[in-house]
Amino acid sequence: MSDFLRETSVAPVGEGLYRGHVAPEWNIGDNPNGGYLMAIAVRALRQTLAHPDPLSVTAHYLRPGLADAECEVKTQVIRTGRTLSTARATLVQEGKARLELLCAFGDLSAPAAPAPAHQKPAAQLPARLTLPPPPTPPPEACVARSGFIQGIDLPIGQRLDMRLHPDQAMAGGASQAEVTGWLRFRDGAEPSTDALLLFVDAFPPSMIPVLGNVGWVPTIELTVHVRRRPAPGWIQGRLCTEDLDAGRMIESACLWDSEGQLVAQSRQLGLVLAGG
Amino acid sequence: MSDFLRETSVAPVGEGLYRGHVAPEWNIGDNPNGGYLMAIAVRALRQTLAHPDPLSVTAHYLRPGLADAECEVKTQVIRTGRTLSTARATLVQEGKARLELLCAFGDLSAPAAPAPAHQKPAAQLPARLTLPPPPTPPPEACVARSGFIQGIDLPIGQRLDMRLHPDQAMAGGASQAEVTGWLRFRDGAEPSTDALLLFVDAFPPSMIPVLGNVGWVPTIELTVHVRRRPAPGWIQGRLCTEDLDAGRMIESACLWDSEGQLVAQSRQLGLVLAGG
Repeated sequence: MSDFLRETSVAPVGEGLYRGHVAPEWNIGDNPNGGYLMAIAVRALRQTLAHPDPLSVTAHYLRPGLADAECEVKTQVIRTGRTLSTARATLVQEGKARLELLCAFGDLSAPAAPAPAHQKPAAQLPARLTLPPPPTPPPEACVARSGFIQGIDLPIGQRLDMRLHPDQAMAGGASQAEVTGWLRFRDGAEPSTDALLLFVDAFPPSMIPVLGNVGWVPTIELTVHVRRRPAPGWIQGRLCTEDLDAGRMIESACLWDSEGQLVAQSRQLGLVLAGG
Repeated sequence: MSDFLRETSVAPVGEGLYRGHVAPEWNIGDNPNGGYLMAIAVRALRQTLAHPDPLSVTAHYLRPGLADAECEVKTQVIRTGRTLSTARATLVQEGKARLELLCAFGDLSAPAAPAPAHQKPAAQLPARLTLPPPPTPPPEACVARSGFIQGIDLPIGQRLDMRLHPDQAMAGGASQAEVTGWLRFRDGAEPSTDALLLFVDAFPPSMIPVLGNVGWVPTIELTVHVRRRPAPGWIQGRLCTEDLDAGRMIESACLWDSEGQLVAQSRQLGLVLAGG
């Protein structure tokens, strides 16, 4: 079993109640990565719902998660339809809610509705109706992520192999609040739809090239749309800060698989506490 | 009292329970506009929560809303912090849940945290840390929205004055899945943060310039981030389809106020049922 599958697994312990363990190997500094916590909650929802793929997952981060500690996930089905299941989940540690989720699950292997005549298979979609990956040098020509650029320890580097665009300055002063690069599991596990929930939140904050070291950027809310089941291989990512004001930032991320298909999009509301 | 305030108002009828009326004047075809229903639910949350501004609102559309019918909104506070309140709400009609919301409220007139030294006031933000409005001719040089382009009646035109970019072909075949234009209330009411929840969802689907008439595009999930309180005057909007596959589309919207400041962003997962 892969590190990711083992360390996001939850066991049913009651009606809509699951128990798991938050492993410290996915930390950013002292805090479990937000996408990792989301993936744990989604593993519980997967056991509750009939549909296989998380199409839309919104998580509100109520309190920091606790690393190397037990967690409980409470799930509640809101509606089950023919093509869609809607549900909520709460991830609890030491009696306190840490994450609140609202999700829609569906089946990415089937069309959502009778396909309109003008729609083509994904591989033939015109670029104007999807987002093609940005030009990024291949992983072997990129640089390994170091904790140095964010000024905090990155235990998550034990689990994820991350490569960043060699031309993106990480010292501040760049003209674009953008980070691009590549991600894969260190243990050789291939990406899954659940892994994409983690991957959208694993790159360094995209405002670093402009502002320099900004430390830990707590997420208030993160919404992920999984668009396609990823092909095996590296996942390519692009993050950009869309708006920063009064310490609140909006950051968008896109992920593509090794075949160049858009596999996930996300947007988050986060807090910038320090830096410059 | 403005049409919008009157027709989104809800009265408390119990602990976390509010009652209102869904007016038919905000319909797209036979269905109440999704952003209008979101605004009704947020009016109820406003009466429940201590913080004044909806910073992040996610709505899952479980069933179509009913126009010209009573509605109930059930609210539940998840967490109240010093700078943030998190809550859920359910909009119910005829005993069935129509919308499920998960929201964070805050105060847009105050910084989220002690401002980092490098952060400047919003008006001086470099373009690379916000999204400037696209070049669009002024409202008087744009064309009024007609129901014709979407092939359905637009009762919402009674309430909203909408102008679209004169060069955007609405017959299909365009090179970009993008719609830009202007919005304001017909009765002269100025935009509010609640109004932005409606405005992000009021423009025609942005895939129309590429695909032509696509009919009613039901929303599965819509997340809105309100970024700033809008200045009086027209609201400028830009929508684009980011990804369309197997009948499921992701569309993003941005709104700017009359001073050119980004006031709201949204992204939705919707279904394309017909067209071409």
